[in-house]
Amino acid sequence: MNGREPRSPRSAAHEIERYAALFADRTTVMKSSAMRDLMALTARDDVISFSGGLPDTSTFAPGFFTELMGRVAAASCAKALQYGPTEGLESVRERITEVMAAEGMEVDADAVLPTSGGQQAIDLVCKILLNPGDIVIAEAPTYPGAVPTFCSYEAEVIQVTMDRDGMRIDELRETLARLDREGRRPKFIYTIPSFHNPGGVTMSLERRQELVQIAGERELLILEDNPYGMLRYEGDPLPTLYSLDPEFVLYTSTFSKILSPGVRLGWLVAPPPVLAKLVLGKGSSDLCSASISQFFIAEYFASVNWLDYVRSLTEIYRRRRDVMLDALAEHLPREASWTHPQGGLFLWATLPEYIDTTDLLARAIQERVAFVPGRAAYVDGRGGSSMRLNFSGVTEDEIREGVRRLGEVVHEQVAMYSTLSGLTPSPRHQSEPGAGGPAGPPAPRTGPAAPPAAGEDLAQVLHLKRKHA
Amino acid sequence: MNGREPRSPRSAAHEIERYAALFADRTTVMKSSAMRDLMALTARDDVISFSGGLPDTSTFAPGFFTELMGRVAAASCAKALQYGPTEGLESVRERITEVMAAEGMEVDADAVLPTSGGQQAIDLVCKILLNPGDIVIAEAPTYPGAVPTFCSYEAEVIQVTMDRDGMRIDELRETLARLDREGRRPKFIYTIPSFHNPGGVTMSLERRQELVQIAGERELLILEDNPYGMLRYEGDPLPTLYSLDPEFVLYTSTFSKILSPGVRLGWLVAPPPVLAKLVLGKGSSDLCSASISQFFIAEYFASVNWLDYVRSLTEIYRRRRDVMLDALAEHLPREASWTHPQGGLFLWATLPEYIDTTDLLARAIQERVAFVPGRAAYVDGRGGSSMRLNFSGVTEDEIREGVRRLGEVVHEQVAMYSTLSGLTPSPRHQSEPGAGGPAGPPAPRTGPAAPPAAGEDLAQVLHLKRKHA
Repeated sequence: MNGREPRSPRSAAHEIERYAALFADRTTVMKSSAMRDLMALTARDDVISFSGGLPDTSTFAPGFFTELMGRVAAASCAKALQYGPTEGLESVRERITEVMAAEGMEVDADAVLPTSGGQQAIDLVCKILLNPGDIVIAEAPTYPGAVPTFCSYEAEVIQVTMDRDGMRIDELRETLARLDREGRRPKFIYTIPSFHNPGGVTMSLERRQELVQIAGERELLILEDNPYGMLRYEGDPLPTLYSLDPEFVLYTSTFSKILSPGVRLGWLVAPPPVLAKLVLGKGSSDLCSASISQFFIAEYFASVNWLDYVRSLTEIYRRRRDVMLDALAEHLPREASWTHPQGGLFLWATLPEYIDTTDLLARAIQERVAFVPGRAAYVDGRGGSSMRLNFSGVTEDEIREGVRRLGEVVHEQVAMYSTLSGLTPSPRHQSEPGAGGPAGPPAPRTGPAAPPAAGEDLAQVLHLKRKHA
Repeated sequence: MNGREPRSPRSAAHEIERYAALFADRTTVMKSSAMRDLMALTARDDVISFSGGLPDTSTFAPGFFTELMGRVAAASCAKALQYGPTEGLESVRERITEVMAAEGMEVDADAVLPTSGGQQAIDLVCKILLNPGDIVIAEAPTYPGAVPTFCSYEAEVIQVTMDRDGMRIDELRETLARLDREGRRPKFIYTIPSFHNPGGVTMSLERRQELVQIAGERELLILEDNPYGMLRYEGDPLPTLYSLDPEFVLYTSTFSKILSPGVRLGWLVAPPPVLAKLVLGKGSSDLCSASISQFFIAEYFASVNWLDYVRSLTEIYRRRRDVMLDALAEHLPREASWTHPQGGLFLWATLPEYIDTTDLLARAIQERVAFVPGRAAYVDGRGGSSMRLNFSGVTEDEIREGVRRLGEVVHEQVAMYSTLSGLTPSPRHQSEPGAGGPAGPPAPRTGPAAPPAAGEDLAQVLHLKRKHA
């Protein structure tokens, strides 16, 4: 604040104190998502980033991009540069119904609202449903990008733990019963049933059925977030909640993972009275989503078999997942554990509980590797020794090297702790495959789900299991 | 609701009653902007629409679009398809500082936040500043697209009337004094000083100076919305409020009017503590603006002299304004009046007070012409006999034909009223140029502004003047 620069917005007069009283109450609880903070890092070429929710867009041929844009220009240049309807282009809504049909959902184009990415879909649902203090039920951990949104609407978020079959329905029932006793009722249940972000697990069929049944009995809305459903690397597809029973399900997905996040186009499906409010909400937020993106999407789907591209991505990501699983087994200490995702972009790793991954991140970035600290996936400070690792936006070599770097900083912490506590550090580079090793895929289910052991939650128990093995 | 379609979201079970109790309080005051409702009409080829805030994007050569996208693909295809930082691409922020420099503002790229259109800029400012019940001061009329946003944050909007020199500062002072007595304080003053939307007037230099002085004395934030500043058709440029004194000015503008609304890119300039909150707010709203648009913008500005394109638009829009002014003089009845904009995209027309323009619109659409009813620009039901007319997004021939159609439905109403009230209808197709005629450009100002006559507000007095002339 030295010198006089009357025209500079950085003058002393602009310090935070002056504005503090002006800010809305919601700003006191609004927080940064670790994702957002780390997104800047993805631009740094020397950091191997497992932090973004990044698909690999490098497999999209530049020549094809130009070709598509050439067709957009030839047929609709002025319209692509112009405002469009808040409800989205009809051609895009039609394409969305095709994508949903490929996952077994039959939906009318009029029930679909294109949004500015999946993030806006979550924001709009909160906007039309949440008063300050209203309850949202989410998984523990939950999508780190949803946490700041829930906070910005001053929601009370109750997180229900997951095990390897997804959200624990027994805990959900207990939570709902407790809320009943308190005379309270959640506004909606937010869930990512398939290839959970960040959990890396998938909700079993039985639990899906139970969940929509609970919603039906209680007339309780579910927000089903399904960005990754098409990206399955093993096992058989499971029906979405929406296809089991659409009655109380608001459904959201996105083009981000099957094509491009840079177009910023996702969508919502909702019953007409809810959709009408969502459209109002979107109009006041950004009038309409980028027309240039909508025409690009429409042209893309008209020009190729989009499923072939998704299949090609699936092949790439499956290999990357496998490389990451192998690398973790090689480089992380035996006290660590991680999930084995059947699809999607993420796995969830848990380190010894004395390691705080938020602190670890600073050290990791020095070693040029990044991840999302687990605490970003909770509203209540849990997740401190866990981390989300993305394997889709990095090459196989980068995964090997990045996990090697990550292993180094983790081992460094383990060694430091051992020195301080007088324990023997675990041997480096030792993996422990088998029953006590990295979490394998869930066993094929032949009967009704056995109730999970008490406390068997994703973030902690896999870790404890290994520790006490 | 006939038949059983258990998978259809349109089943009886989804009727509004079921959801009414679930919706957030804000939805009861959220309203549709007439703009949004009418945007769908712009897609109908047979309607001549004066309703959108549409620039003419048809002058952008499709070949050049393809060329630019080809360059984006060659240099940055994967990045254009990928997420970007919430803070926006640095290249885009740099370009924004160039645009602002062309309007006499010196700003650091770090003080700029690209947003998903100007609409999101307004939304984000509300998001970080407004608690329910907080006061926003705006002009009367104000931007119809801002009304639903203010409402969605449950603001109390106080509208200060305008005359042909823009917001009446005397009335602003009275309003602030009244609020002082009530122990209340507005969170910010929202203003469009240049080529007002929808008012079509421009704030005089004296009033600009007074306004920033008031803001400085009271430490009161101004949100200066300047989408049209570069589009001046006559008279000398006036300094923006931001360039007079940036200290209490949050500044917003957009690429929508100087290039393309379809890219959905606007921006905000704010002091660092405010900018930090805005970035948080944006992250939870949509993570980032479309990368594809940002790379297109960066490539465009790197490839041409963008000011030449703005100048070419200015020439086109000036002629369209003139054609509209002539057509209004030819086709509207003598009881009507309208503003004479020195720039921008809109003029504001006021009909005899017995005509309700919301009702008139239905009739007008039957005759295949559309406008924004004046009430959309007020929170309090005023503006009922006024309308906003856009002249930038329609050809000269369409303007002549559209205003002819508009004149017919207006004359029809006048004749109907005259029959019912026993008065003689005014002769058709008669214009009344001169002192009592359509509002001319403001006289050159040589001294301090004379206080406007009491009640001389834009929406009503021009009309009354003519009626009593």
